[in-house]
Amino acid sequence: MAINFDSGPIPVIVQDSATREVLMLAYADKEALRLTRDTGYAHYYSRSRRKLWKKGEESGHVQRVIRILVDCDEDTILYQVEQQGAACHTGHMSCFYRTIGGEEISGRVFDPEKVYANKGE
Amino acid sequence: MAINFDSGPIPVIVQDSATREVLMLAYADKEALRLTRDTGYAHYYSRSRRKLWKKGEESGHVQRVIRILVDCDEDTILYQVEQQGAACHTGHMSCFYRTIGGEEISGRVFDPEKVYANKGE
Repeated sequence: MAINFDSGPIPVIVQDSATREVLMLAYADKEALRLTRDTGYAHYYSRSRRKLWKKGEESGHVQRVIRILVDCDEDTILYQVEQQGAACHTGHMSCFYRTIGGEEISGRVFDPEKVYANKGE
Repeated sequence: MAINFDSGPIPVIVQDSATREVLMLAYADKEALRLTRDTGYAHYYSRSRRKLWKKGEESGHVQRVIRILVDCDEDTILYQVEQQGAACHTGHMSCFYRTIGGEEISGRVFDPEKVYANKGE
């Protein structure tokens, strides 16, 4: 299926394939999508850092991609994944761990200071 | 909670609150989000038509918003909704009705020609 990258990197919704929880939103360019399909692990394109990245390359919290869905306009995709660890850099399973009213709806799965700062120890 | 609209309208992931199926991706500006919160029905901002719209205003397939979640960066939101009819203008429940390989994973819930074209009859 042809994906429309005419306007640059496209949004990728990431969903846990088992629980169906929405984990995060990121972006992919053509190369990130190709690497995701070729390796079976989620890759993205960071618009702020202007570079390709593999989810979990630092934290180990990789995402094995079970299925990729495409929307009707072919300009948004959905990765259904098996999440190792947790998706959010804050330590929560999902980046969507708060309501708009500020209530936390889920706790931390890991301590981000241990995962990101003490990696070399 | 402060939502970051500095870069313009933000992505809104829309998920069925009961089945947890991801239904669509759209965008909201500050006004669309305000109307969504005030009315309890999903409103969006169309970047191509440059205007606010209410989901279902033509089709009747409105979305009652049960909960709004915010991501860690506060620049993406998630509407958990009760979907009337179906979310996709093609007649499928979700806009994500195909795999990237082109396989349809779900059938139509309604006939778009009847819903959109013969509305005045």
